[in-house]
Amino acid sequence: MALVVMKFGGSSLADPDKIKLVANRVIQKKKAGNKVIVVVSAPGDTTDDLLTMAENITSNPPERELDVLLATGEMMSIALLAMAIDSMGQKVISLTGPQAGIVADVNYTCARVKKVNPNKIKQLLAKDNIVIVAGFQALNAKGDITTLGRGGSDLTSVILAASLQANFCEIYSDVEGIFTTDPRIVKEARKIEYISYDEMLELSGSGAQVLQSRSVEIAKKFGVEIHAGSTFSSNQGTIITSEENIRRKNMEALLVSGIAFDKNQVKFTIIDLPDTPGVAAKIFSKLAKVGVNVDMIIQSAAVNKKNDISFTVSKQAVKKTQIELDKLASELKASEVICDEQVAKVSVVGIGMKSNVGVAGKMFDILHKKGINIEMISTSEIKISCIVDERDLRMAVQELHKGFGLSTTK
Amino acid sequence: MALVVMKFGGSSLADPDKIKLVANRVIQKKKAGNKVIVVVSAPGDTTDDLLTMAENITSNPPERELDVLLATGEMMSIALLAMAIDSMGQKVISLTGPQAGIVADVNYTCARVKKVNPNKIKQLLAKDNIVIVAGFQALNAKGDITTLGRGGSDLTSVILAASLQANFCEIYSDVEGIFTTDPRIVKEARKIEYISYDEMLELSGSGAQVLQSRSVEIAKKFGVEIHAGSTFSSNQGTIITSEENIRRKNMEALLVSGIAFDKNQVKFTIIDLPDTPGVAAKIFSKLAKVGVNVDMIIQSAAVNKKNDISFTVSKQAVKKTQIELDKLASELKASEVICDEQVAKVSVVGIGMKSNVGVAGKMFDILHKKGINIEMISTSEIKISCIVDERDLRMAVQELHKGFGLSTTK
Repeated sequence: MALVVMKFGGSSLADPDKIKLVANRVIQKKKAGNKVIVVVSAPGDTTDDLLTMAENITSNPPERELDVLLATGEMMSIALLAMAIDSMGQKVISLTGPQAGIVADVNYTCARVKKVNPNKIKQLLAKDNIVIVAGFQALNAKGDITTLGRGGSDLTSVILAASLQANFCEIYSDVEGIFTTDPRIVKEARKIEYISYDEMLELSGSGAQVLQSRSVEIAKKFGVEIHAGSTFSSNQGTIITSEENIRRKNMEALLVSGIAFDKNQVKFTIIDLPDTPGVAAKIFSKLAKVGVNVDMIIQSAAVNKKNDISFTVSKQAVKKTQIELDKLASELKASEVICDEQVAKVSVVGIGMKSNVGVAGKMFDILHKKGINIEMISTSEIKISCIVDERDLRMAVQELHKGFGLSTTK
Repeated sequence: MALVVMKFGGSSLADPDKIKLVANRVIQKKKAGNKVIVVVSAPGDTTDDLLTMAENITSNPPERELDVLLATGEMMSIALLAMAIDSMGQKVISLTGPQAGIVADVNYTCARVKKVNPNKIKQLLAKDNIVIVAGFQALNAKGDITTLGRGGSDLTSVILAASLQANFCEIYSDVEGIFTTDPRIVKEARKIEYISYDEMLELSGSGAQVLQSRSVEIAKKFGVEIHAGSTFSSNQGTIITSEENIRRKNMEALLVSGIAFDKNQVKFTIIDLPDTPGVAAKIFSKLAKVGVNVDMIIQSAAVNKKNDISFTVSKQAVKKTQIELDKLASELKASEVICDEQVAKVSVVGIGMKSNVGVAGKMFDILHKKGINIEMISTSEIKISCIVDERDLRMAVQELHKGFGLSTTK
């Protein structure tokens, strides 16, 4: 008898019919002889609606109270799904995050899970219940309700799978799995059968928002195999597992697994900074202090004791960044700050790169042949990212997808 | 320094502006030097909306899950009101019913409060917080969320006032207090300054839905003085207190405090029942078994070893009652069952009746002079109720209001 954690996102619970469909899938899994824990997000747009309610009261709500408000969304889901499953004649019980024994630190709105007390879930499973748990929420040491940040329900499901030693964790959404790239850009995009935790992390960090990154990190740490699939299809989805498991199955890993891209990028360039030690540190620690997350950074070689620094931030951080840079530029006597909002990031990701040289060269060559200018480059062990003009992004993704052989069926 | 419990109903929290207005009233109370606990209901129509969500899933939801769903409404209110108060610069913290230490029995949807652990609230008050508590909800011994039934937020506020020995409990709604009768029927209806717990109980039992009856019972038991007033007005409302307190202030209690009425009545008459012992017991125990609450009962004098029994039930219970009576009538060989949906109940209520005879006679006389036929009568120590034709109700209420001197200002 396997223990399975099934997680359903908000779009899978957006109306009564969808909730009943989810109930059916859960019951099938139970009837196939599994013990089943279900983790749910808030229905449809509920979380956004709740945020709007808060905004209508104040632009700066206390985070503790925001968490109390947001936690109601997942409570609706657990109750409604339990009702649907009960009406189909199966034993079922719902638990809030606190009731499920999920204990977090004292941060609000983005709490980190400290531990899970799985006894209540175990007892309920032993009594043949399907156990439904509210994702995204936890209890802290003060007895307060906290939430785990956007995508926190993924985290709840992986953490429960880890602490209850589930056989695997199934994460359902409205897409059929992880694709080689966005099918809206490249119609030949294929569903990936197996992908490693690290590739998945690089893909989600590069704008492919299928799974929350922290949940993939936790899955990697505890060896939880994730099955990502569609609520509305019975097709096989994508299995996210360890590199070893994949190599065991595939003999040789693919050179490139997928092409990711991110339009939410803005490039800043500070011209003519003095070439003295500590200048870069000063800039980036100031930005970190005001909460700006810097993505890619390049520094040009010094000419006449001056050099330029370019970096990218998300579009949401532009205003904050501009304010800080204006102060810093005059302080450091830089000649100019340039902000370019018309950029995008394209990345190739694959564990095969580790043992194959030449991927970067091939990527640059493919882009060059189409006349696409590369403005910035950054590399990791299994990823190469380039900043290009936003107007070139679509073509870049299509050409890379074709150039690395992802468009041809195996 | 007084300790005050303030309770706000859903209509006082229906939109952001109303929530801010409530926040202002709470802050005024705090700034006047009081310790303040606020109890809130779900905003506006939220509870009905949640019930509709459940109905769209199943007509027969498990009560445990219904309570989880309904509890989200009050959680929204505590968070939103806390945000509003915080944004106005006051120290504030929200608590769910379970966090506030409200412990109930194991019944769902209409749990009874077993005890309150007020330590957390006391600590938070000692740290100068305004403490906001979700009404209507509690925790049971299993660790489950339960709800206290319709009007349960009134109960929460009175129970907190009792267990924390608050100086009084203010219950705010969209009406200015308790009136001598419904101002929509009698435009001369006056706001009552003082009313006793018992009169209030008789009034709410007779259809004047201002305060939940159980909360008035608890207030009486623990001597909690209730101030009922409007969220949207600074006028003095109605004080609900003990008969002793009222007599102390008024010297002599009013003969009649108010005229109540109830259109939600249906009269059943069973014709020609055998006049043998146990027949009435059989009928009413059967009805009790299927959950039908019988209000007034009269039995005619026996003629030829046969008699008739009439009684009233609420309109919601008509179908169930009809089914049971059809079975019983043939079993008991009654000749006929008559159902009259066009009836209503009118009641005069007043502690002054205890020491003044002749109130009943005066009531019947007033109705008789207008040609209003009395179909049934029941009396208690401080109330006389008559069933009349629904078409005569309006005139009955107006004439009784005038006849007992309630229309003239004192």
